[in-house]
Amino acid sequence: MSKITYSISSLNSILKKARPSQVCIVTSGILAKKLKWAINEIKFSNIKTVLIPDGEKAKEWEELQKLLAQFSKLNLDRNSIVIALGGGTVGDLVGFAASIYLRGVRYVQIPTTLLGQVDSAHGGKTGINFLKYKNQIGVFAVPLVTVVDTRFIRSLSREQIADGLGEIIKAGLIKDKSILSILNKETLNSLPKSQRLDSLVKKSIAVKLSYTEKDFRDATVRQILNAGHTVGHAIELKYKINHGRAVILGLIQELQFTESLGLSASSVRINLVRLLNHLGITMGKKMKAGWSSVIHDKKITGKTIQFPVIQKEGKSKMVELDLNSLKKFIEKV
Amino acid sequence: MSKITYSISSLNSILKKARPSQVCIVTSGILAKKLKWAINEIKFSNIKTVLIPDGEKAKEWEELQKLLAQFSKLNLDRNSIVIALGGGTVGDLVGFAASIYLRGVRYVQIPTTLLGQVDSAHGGKTGINFLKYKNQIGVFAVPLVTVVDTRFIRSLSREQIADGLGEIIKAGLIKDKSILSILNKETLNSLPKSQRLDSLVKKSIAVKLSYTEKDFRDATVRQILNAGHTVGHAIELKYKINHGRAVILGLIQELQFTESLGLSASSVRINLVRLLNHLGITMGKKMKAGWSSVIHDKKITGKTIQFPVIQKEGKSKMVELDLNSLKKFIEKV
Repeated sequence: MSKITYSISSLNSILKKARPSQVCIVTSGILAKKLKWAINEIKFSNIKTVLIPDGEKAKEWEELQKLLAQFSKLNLDRNSIVIALGGGTVGDLVGFAASIYLRGVRYVQIPTTLLGQVDSAHGGKTGINFLKYKNQIGVFAVPLVTVVDTRFIRSLSREQIADGLGEIIKAGLIKDKSILSILNKETLNSLPKSQRLDSLVKKSIAVKLSYTEKDFRDATVRQILNAGHTVGHAIELKYKINHGRAVILGLIQELQFTESLGLSASSVRINLVRLLNHLGITMGKKMKAGWSSVIHDKKITGKTIQFPVIQKEGKSKMVELDLNSLKKFIEKV
Repeated sequence: MSKITYSISSLNSILKKARPSQVCIVTSGILAKKLKWAINEIKFSNIKTVLIPDGEKAKEWEELQKLLAQFSKLNLDRNSIVIALGGGTVGDLVGFAASIYLRGVRYVQIPTTLLGQVDSAHGGKTGINFLKYKNQIGVFAVPLVTVVDTRFIRSLSREQIADGLGEIIKAGLIKDKSILSILNKETLNSLPKSQRLDSLVKKSIAVKLSYTEKDFRDATVRQILNAGHTVGHAIELKYKINHGRAVILGLIQELQFTESLGLSASSVRINLVRLLNHLGITMGKKMKAGWSSVIHDKKITGKTIQFPVIQKEGKSKMVELDLNSLKKFIEKV
């Protein structure tokens, strides 16, 4: 369903064919400066640019209202195309706004972070935060095309690379171990410049799409993508660390847990820790998920939990586990 | 795609099967009192009721925000079902809110006006007004089921019946002339109590669905449903009369126009005026559409307009017409 292209120049041919009445690029003020080269590469006679706040602030209700008012002010019509240029927050807000403006205008995702390129820009989820909840309001929507141009990655900081590596490592562990082999040949420093970056990104996207393409509303099929996230989300919330580091920590701790139940080979965790050392990702102080946060995040009500279990590298399945054993494990980490 | 049922009792079997975690009925304060009998007929162990303003006020941005906050406060989850009980405005707001809350929860439409039952509740359009534009923000969405229970119609006023008759007459003119035969046996007074009401409503819905079911986003196929609306919308805006009366006036004036071009049989208009007299619908003072309003509403840019032409009763097609001739006609009405 989703269409992906790997360069801005092929986006231009798609725009030419799509014949929009207007093109509206939405990005943050910081990115508009930093990514001027990319904006200049998008060729269309009638391009407007709208700026939104940087970071999670963009996903507030008032920002949605402001963005829709901008669309209206620019007279975007049913035949216009909106382009989301930025990280996950930009894609989430803009994809949602485009999907409800005039009951839906076409939009293009151009993820500019590693996390966006391998994960958030795919799978159809758009939305904003509401009251105190994340992604409470939104829709599932398919962009006209998602442009995954790895040139954006070349200039990212080590920390921004680490932010994307959580989902990449997860993709390797749950489904495609060749991803782990590639990572074993790289480091945090070498990766942005590596010739292997493109292949790494493509493989990671393929893993995500293998679970989301058939029916991206199907929460059951998507569950395996939550590997590392039961513990990871709770840690992310508590320690305000980036998503990638949180997922990595989540993966390690969840592997410890499933290993203790005899469900995961110990080599998976041992190799993962070795890989992190090799990459140059150090985790610093010990972090512990709060149990109430785990329960709330996963909306668990019964006595068991459907848990993504990595059996060995590249092989995983959902297993119904006793909730109490998970609680005991998390409390003694 | 859309599922329709004709009684609240069959809704109850659907709810039983759907096994929602909660059911949330959204309606206006006035309707909650007036339609207590209907609310009492909806059987489910865990029902909450949320009240929204009556009329077009419900379709404001702030009301959307309030309604979503109510959903959140009631802890509606992905497995909840929202029921929209009311006229078109209730259906538009609630259908939209349900479609974006948690990226979409299931909802049920229970239209309680004649206009809602034969037109607005069908075809998947939901949404709210934004800035000064109607239905600027929304989505296409399919309810779990639409409950068309004609008992709601039995207690409507003459004017509320007239409000629904515009679309019913239009359905007869564009596609199913048996609708006109039924109307010729009724009056504004007799209709709410008539045994023919059910059949009339079903036939009108069938006409609408014949144009919207294949792809409800397809604006081209839907165009014929705009018969009477090019002039009608402009009159509705200018004179603030109800939708039904505006569409009826629009149909008459548009027929005069296409008749003058030799595209419509004069008998269509003559019979229509006769039918209105028979029904007891009098139009009062002469009303004239404003040309700028027509242009803006239809977002016309070129020199021609795709115009729905009723050739004879029950037969219609889209014809490309010269914009200037329409302008001349409208200005001299």
